[in-house]
Parts: sequence; C-alpha cells; structure tokens
Amino acid sequence: MFKKVLIIGCGLIGSSIARAICNQKLAKNVYIYEKSIKNILVLKNLRIKFKIIKNLEKNLIHFDMIIFCIPMSQYQNIIKKINNFVTSHTIITDVGSTKELINIKVKKLLKKKSQWIPSHPIAGSEVSGAKYGNKDLFKNKWCVLIKEQNTNKKSLNKLKIFWKKMGSKIVFMNLKQHDAIFSITSHLPHLIAYNLVKTATDFEKGKKYNLIKYSAGGLRDFSRIAASNEIMWRDIFFSNNKNIISAINKFIKNLKSFQKDIRHNNNKIIKKLINTKKVRKKIISLKQDINKPDFGR
Amino acid sequence: MFKKVLIIGCGLIGSSIARAICNQKLAKNVYIYEKSIKNILVLKNLRIKFKIIKNLEKNLIHFDMIIFCIPMSQYQNIIKKINNFVTSHTIITDVGSTKELINIKVKKLLKKKSQWIPSHPIAGSEVSGAKYGNKDLFKNKWCVLIKEQNTNKKSLNKLKIFWKKMGSKIVFMNLKQHDAIFSITSHLPHLIAYNLVKTATDFEKGKKYNLIKYSAGGLRDFSRIAASNEIMWRDIFFSNNKNIISAINKFIKNLKSFQKDIRHNNNKIIKKLINTKKVRKKIISLKQDINKPDFGR
Repeated sequence: MFKKVLIIGCGLIGSSIARAICNQKLAKNVYIYEKSIKNILVLKNLRIKFKIIKNLEKNLIHFDMIIFCIPMSQYQNIIKKINNFVTSHTIITDVGSTKELINIKVKKLLKKKSQWIPSHPIAGSEVSGAKYGNKDLFKNKWCVLIKEQNTNKKSLNKLKIFWKKMGSKIVFMNLKQHDAIFSITSHLPHLIAYNLVKTATDFEKGKKYNLIKYSAGGLRDFSRIAASNEIMWRDIFFSNNKNIISAINKFIKNLKSFQKDIRHNNNKIIKKLINTKKVRKKIISLKQDINKPDFGR
Repeated sequence: MFKKVLIIGCGLIGSSIARAICNQKLAKNVYIYEKSIKNILVLKNLRIKFKIIKNLEKNLIHFDMIIFCIPMSQYQNIIKKINNFVTSHTIITDVGSTKELINIKVKKLLKKKSQWIPSHPIAGSEVSGAKYGNKDLFKNKWCVLIKEQNTNKKSLNKLKIFWKKMGSKIVFMNLKQHDAIFSITSHLPHLIAYNLVKTATDFEKGKKYNLIKYSAGGLRDFSRIAASNEIMWRDIFFSNNKNIISAINKFIKNLKSFQKDIRHNNNKIIKKLINTKKVRKKIISLKQDINKPDFGR
C-alpha cells in the first residue's frame, strides 16, 4: 500500500485510477493535480477522498508514487515542476500510449536517480473526461509495464502489484517492443479510421451525395474510433512516427495487392478473406472481444 | 398483400425476411428454396408457416414475388431455372450489395418482360446463417430500392410497401448512385478491415510477437468486420470493382498525406482529427449509431 499517491490529470484514465485506488484502498492519501474545473466537479460529486494540489511548484509533500495521466506533449512541462520534490524513492509512471521517444525526453529532464517506470493500460475509449471514468475500467484489461535492463526490480514489482489490484493483467515489454506492437494493433487502426472518414467526407463534398446517412454498412464502426481525443492522438502519432510510417507502408502494400486482385477478378482473394476470419476467432478465444454478432447499436 | 412469395436462399437475410413476412402477414404463402440442411432445420423449429421448393426446374407454381437472398455469383444459375415460371406479373427482387454490373448480367439472362427491381436492405452483419435471423432485422434500417427510368411504378410501389411493413426506411437510388455510395460507406471499410488484419498477422509472423493478444486498442473492432462471409464479399468486390478501385486510390492518397504530416510533425494534423470527430456527431444525429461509449464488449 502506498502512503501518498499523486495523479496528474484526472480525465477518463486518471479519474478511473483515483476511483480504483479508493475502492481497493491502495493508498492512504490520494492527491490530484487537475486544471479542468469540469473534471474536478465530477470528482467532487463522487464518494472518494482526495486532496487537490493547486500549485505543483509550491508543493512540499513527498509522494511514494506519481502517475502522469495527461497528453504526452505536456510531460516536459510537468517534469520541470515535479523535479523540486521527487526523490529516488518516488516511483513515477504514466499511462501514455507510446514509450521510446518519450522515455528519452523524460530521462533528459527528470532529476537524476529518479525512477521512471512507464505503464500502459489498454483501456481507452473514444470518449474523454472524468465523467466517463469508472473504478472497473482496468478490470481484465492488459497493462503493459516497461522493463529495461536498468529498471529497479523492487519498484517494478510494487507497480505490478498496484495494477494487478486494480484488476489488470500484467505483461512486461521493453520500450522498442512496446512501440512496435502498438503501432500495429492500435496506432495504425486509429489513423486508418481517421482517413477512412476523411475519404468519405471528401467524396460527399465532391459528389454531393448524402452518404453518411447510409454509414451502417461499415463506415459507422470506424467513425467511433475516429472520434477519439485529437491532442492525445497527435501526440501518439508524432512520438511513434518511425514505427507508424513503416506500418502505413506495409498496409498500403497489402491494399495495393488486394486492389490488383479485385481488378483481375483473382479468386485467390477468397483465401485472404478466410485467413482474416481465423484472426477474428483468435481474438475471441483470447477474450479481447465477445462472439455476439453486432447488428448496430 | 402478396399471394405467393418465393425466397431463394434462407441464410441471415432470407430467413429474416421469412420471419418478418409471417409476423406481419405480408403473404398468404411463403415458399423457400434452400439447399443448406442446417438452415432448413432452423426454419422448421420456428413457428412460421412455409413450404419448401425442392426442385426449381420442376416448379409449376406462379409467384407474385421472388426474392434472391443468395451470393450474387449464384444469380445467373438461378435465373436459368426460374425463367420457366416467371411471368410479366412476377416482381423479382434481391438483397445484394452491388447493383450496376449485376443488373446487366441479370437483364441478359432473365426472360424478357419480367420485372427485375433490385433492393438493398442495409442490415447485414459479420455473421451468416438462418440461426442469426430475426423478424426485426430490418426495423429502422435503410432499404435502398433501385429506380431507373423504365422501372414499373406500380410494382416499385408494391415493393416499397413490402419493405416498409417490415420496418425499413425507404430510399430510391439509381444503379450508378447506389454503387458509388456503397463503395465508400461499406465496401471500402470492409476491404480496409481485411487488409489491416492481414497487416497485423504478417507483422506477427515476421517479428514473432504475439500481438493479437493486445488487439483491444483498435484492431479488435476492425476484426469483427473482417470476419464477414468471404463468398458474399468476393462477389461484392468483383461486381463493383471500378468504384472500389477508385475508392482505394482516394484513400491511399489521404493516407500518404497523413503519413507526411506524421513524418514532419505537422500540427495541421489536429484539424484533420477534429474534422472526423464532426462526422461522428453527424452519424449519431442521423441515428446510424448511438452515443454510448464503447469500452469493449
């Protein structure tokens, strides 16, 4: 159990962590640093105990753990402020979606001997803000913890227990592995969704057809993903750009080969379609989705 | 009300039509032509009245309406069989997802003076088979009816009333319009989903990372769409290939411009991300989806 935990940013993820900590009694005191009055009001209406830190520069409290739950482009600004009070005993973690480039930037700025151990709970959604948070957000979801050769084993273990108690399933990855995997399973799907929706609106403007009306045939499902927070996603795209650029190239190559199959009525397309069905079955067997058909909501 | 309706193919869509006809009492007699024993057994366990036509070649019954609910590649084969008994009073329709190329093929084969008026209910899913059918499948869903200059107005009106009674909202389009619109709202999203899943599995093989496990961050949602019936989708891709090839080109152009933005950390990306969010709002206001956030199922 931690004595004093500071959550920086209390939107969807930060407020869910606050709720889970209180529910599971994982810390004696929860401190929150949050600028949005909207989010603070949501928190104040909950039955959880926390203290607001108004000014990080003037803070005198020592924390066991600090969790960054803000867009990654704000990390540098926050680090300058917390350097005054972090010690070698403070575990500092985050919930960001990319790791390698951010790690270099953080290490450069953060006080030496401090312990930066990144986390990535796979629990986001297209919505943001404290009002959507809930104490069970991390239940049965994967949480990636970054383990490099120089990671402090004791602190890593504490962090592991912390996420486990919030319901997460833990997996360790190194920085490189993490960014490569999520460039494919998360970053590529998101940018594809954005560009599909853009292609549809371009077409609508050009042809003056009201086609969004008929989006139930597929487009609808992509539009949900494309509605995610724009600041957060810009930061993700920019901070994992090498992997993402390569993922786009791989995807375009597949797309062009598929286009060729269509052009030549090549029946080999059937084999491709069957293979992707198998992946769906695997996703369901791995409990990443359920088997219930979706006829629209 | 129709006297005798023949449904050819009783999978997800055909069996839902059979259920809806019986529920709404839209025909005195329902006849079904279906080869799959699995589907017939499902139908026999329902409380609906229908007769099985075992041999189309030997059929002597006159039908008011015939509905094709089979993959489009089977149309030609069926038309040869029904030509024996269709008259100029039989309304013949289908539920296929593409229209223009199929129309040419059908018109070439179908007995002259017969009435081919295509329908397209936007009500599919990733599952197939009679067991997933239900009488309310078409409720509040769009149904496109193809209206060309030479379409018989009286028959078109009958068909319109038929779909309306099953709960559909009706929209008229011509062949060209239909295929252009759905190449963007449905065919492009589906082929993108297939190719995204393929890109992920290629990557998994190459790097030997078990990445499907972490598909909750986006890939999962695409995999559902990519699990749709392969025969049906091959037929769709091949029979709307011109529009689809052009849609892929438009999409790749957008994707490359987005890739460039990522490469150069171009902040204009924010504007693109915000614009797609607006489309999501439009889709919800058009009741094509609900506003409830999705944290996985």
